[in-house]
Amino acid sequence: MTQPQPLAGTDQATTALAIGIDVGGTKILGVVTGADGVIANRLMAPTPKEPERVPDGIAAVAVELRNRMVADGLEPAAVGVGVPGLVDHEGVLHYGPNVPGVVGLDIAGHLRGRLDLPAVADNDASLAAVAEHRLGAARGYEHAIIVTQGTGIGGGLIVNNALLHGANGFAGEPGHMLIDRFGPRCACGTQGCWEALASGAGLANLARQVIAEGRGARILELAGGDPGHVRGEHIAEALDERDPDALVVIDKFAWWVAQGLASLITLLDPGIVVLGGGLTALSDSFIPDVQDRVVDAVLGGAYRPVVPVVPAEFGAEAGAVGGSLLALDVVAAG
Amino acid sequence: MTQPQPLAGTDQATTALAIGIDVGGTKILGVVTGADGVIANRLMAPTPKEPERVPDGIAAVAVELRNRMVADGLEPAAVGVGVPGLVDHEGVLHYGPNVPGVVGLDIAGHLRGRLDLPAVADNDASLAAVAEHRLGAARGYEHAIIVTQGTGIGGGLIVNNALLHGANGFAGEPGHMLIDRFGPRCACGTQGCWEALASGAGLANLARQVIAEGRGARILELAGGDPGHVRGEHIAEALDERDPDALVVIDKFAWWVAQGLASLITLLDPGIVVLGGGLTALSDSFIPDVQDRVVDAVLGGAYRPVVPVVPAEFGAEAGAVGGSLLALDVVAAG
Repeated sequence: MTQPQPLAGTDQATTALAIGIDVGGTKILGVVTGADGVIANRLMAPTPKEPERVPDGIAAVAVELRNRMVADGLEPAAVGVGVPGLVDHEGVLHYGPNVPGVVGLDIAGHLRGRLDLPAVADNDASLAAVAEHRLGAARGYEHAIIVTQGTGIGGGLIVNNALLHGANGFAGEPGHMLIDRFGPRCACGTQGCWEALASGAGLANLARQVIAEGRGARILELAGGDPGHVRGEHIAEALDERDPDALVVIDKFAWWVAQGLASLITLLDPGIVVLGGGLTALSDSFIPDVQDRVVDAVLGGAYRPVVPVVPAEFGAEAGAVGGSLLALDVVAAG
Repeated sequence: MTQPQPLAGTDQATTALAIGIDVGGTKILGVVTGADGVIANRLMAPTPKEPERVPDGIAAVAVELRNRMVADGLEPAAVGVGVPGLVDHEGVLHYGPNVPGVVGLDIAGHLRGRLDLPAVADNDASLAAVAEHRLGAARGYEHAIIVTQGTGIGGGLIVNNALLHGANGFAGEPGHMLIDRFGPRCACGTQGCWEALASGAGLANLARQVIAEGRGARILELAGGDPGHVRGEHIAEALDERDPDALVVIDKFAWWVAQGLASLITLLDPGIVVLGGGLTALSDSFIPDVQDRVVDAVLGGAYRPVVPVVPAEFGAEAGAVGGSLLALDVVAAG
């Protein structure tokens, strides 16, 4: 890594670097970027199993990235952290079943105290939306929906060129729209959320349905013979082998992804839909089908422009990059 | 009606009056208001059955209201019209199954030509949202959702104190969120839209289910003995009589209303939800149940502020009043 050389006429904000951190239920991803979103350094660590150790696990990623920067003669300007769940305007997580150690905590304040740096926190998928809107696949769109598909589903809504936070900061949780009210149970406890059908967990649910119908032998084999152990990666592997039953599963999956996107488009009329998160790796296998089916399911589909459905340019790193961008915004705003 | 007397220090925009028109599939409502939303005159006419006569039917309501104003020594400053369906930024209806005579037509231009007045058009429920946000039940809320429940469901989304139009002007059609994907067929042709369960038509669907289970004798009687003839007003009448089966129907209805509102709140995080449209007349019989059930169905319901669900202050006239307010905005903007 070479030290950025300020050009004549550029100011601190142009060359400043920040640390962005995306906290998931199983891993913590940290990146260092400037306002251009180019990742100068990255670090992945497992999320501590004990909830009370999670805040220090997050801080440790930030500290390690700062140490690496200092070794290169650099200093971060700020830290931005994304957490999954309902984050209020002050950055406090009110509801986040995947990261119980962060609930109720001023996580930005915790990082501020540990690093003596400006720090901000927001919902992880909202930060992904910031990255994709400012620098990625939704660049130039006044209205955009970013959906992150991993174990669960997150989302960020760009409205009038800005992230929509809503009254409490909680806006943008499309995974918990009710879409098949008597369908599978969701991790949140409710029955029929979109997340139970169109996330990684939803993909596994659909594979188990196919297995229960007596198909999906190869997927079952890859999962070690136990339907309860089927996960997204087993379906991905079977897809790589062109297993016909995996194609059936991904076809059903694409249909459900399309139904939820149709609801979102009918409600919000975005110019583009960006799909990110861990399932971005599989997007070639389902996005073309999703695109066709959205047109069928959206209100007046034949009478309105087709809304492009595209993969996230920052892939599964969008949330961390967005954290860094938000942190730089805070520094620029003074 | 007395002629408004301009006060010293007030300008034209303060005392100007406009005509607002709400076009439905069965009737056209016109009102005259100032910026205070107080209705100085109103006129209801049936929507012409022949599609090609609808534009003139709309113009006739505007002309008659203007004639009444002129008789009082007044002049309207502008006309604003709301139509159900997908209305673009220029006021052209692209998809509107209930008013085929207006589809593809520049209805504002038609009124401009006929009345020689400034004219604007927007979605009917979006105009209802403008009225409720500016002067009604959502007054003072930065983020609000207005849902109009009549034969179908319409909606208007207030985001950051402004109506959300989206990329094409089509935002805000919550009736066609897919909520019970294998549930009843909607008027739009798709299966499982919220509208098929939580509108006047949805209420009738739920009554027919109860009748099919061998109950609902009084509702069936009020409908002349034919389940196919059951409409919202029969259930309303049975409710007035405290018919226990009508209470079962309204209980199921409240549950479905709550499921859709929960999806909207999870997605948009409004400060308030306002229910308007023709079913406002029944709102006392279902809003308290809706309120309780929304908390159960919304993501993290126990960990976030309760979002009040309230009836529209302008009731079924909100769309027409909003049309007048939008028309006055256009005049004020020059």
